[in-house]
Amino acid sequence: MIFPIPSAPELTPDFSKAGGLIAAIAQDVHTHEVLMLAWMNREAWEATLKTGDAHYYSRSRQELWRKGATSGHVQHVRAIKLDCDSDAVLLLVEQVGAACHTGARSCFFRDIPALPGA
Amino acid sequence: MIFPIPSAPELTPDFSKAGGLIAAIAQDVHTHEVLMLAWMNREAWEATLKTGDAHYYSRSRQELWRKGATSGHVQHVRAIKLDCDSDAVLLLVEQVGAACHTGARSCFFRDIPALPGA
Repeated sequence: MIFPIPSAPELTPDFSKAGGLIAAIAQDVHTHEVLMLAWMNREAWEATLKTGDAHYYSRSRQELWRKGATSGHVQHVRAIKLDCDSDAVLLLVEQVGAACHTGARSCFFRDIPALPGA
Repeated sequence: MIFPIPSAPELTPDFSKAGGLIAAIAQDVHTHEVLMLAWMNREAWEATLKTGDAHYYSRSRQELWRKGATSGHVQHVRAIKLDCDSDAVLLLVEQVGAACHTGARSCFFRDIPALPGA
């Protein structure tokens, strides 16, 4: 999908809060599994809208990256939702291969154990 | 559920990256709808584990809050997953009432329109 950059203020993310970044959650459009959490600056946001493929901003490398550019594990974006205070977005994606750099389908693969019977 | 505070380093969030905060995604344990994104400092993380109810840290008010403390819209945590680089957690919750302060079930209620046919 291609998403024209919205002109409406209520559909524009607020990049003023966390050093110019918003949080982006990628969720599998088919299984609804939460795949990963990453960051977007305005450039990554606009590249995602224009191309329909998820782009993020790496805080550690301080650069824009197209998800899957080296691994091939791209995310084709099927829908985008903005949260109530405009500092987080939810991407519903077709995930090619694994979302996680470890090879796991989702980055959220470690369970915090609960107290049995509690 | 009650979650004993894990002693294993690989199950301990990394609070060193974003001013002492990690990102926390709340997902409905039944419908798998993504409900909200919020923040946790170590105190909020440990309160969540100990009580089994979601606690967050408000960046704007700079304080710990138990989700639903005033609205009654609490989140009973059924499972917790830590991501690969330990700076984000996924909470699978029983949401009482609405997750969003606007009254919406999910904070992600605004759709970014796609180009028709693209």
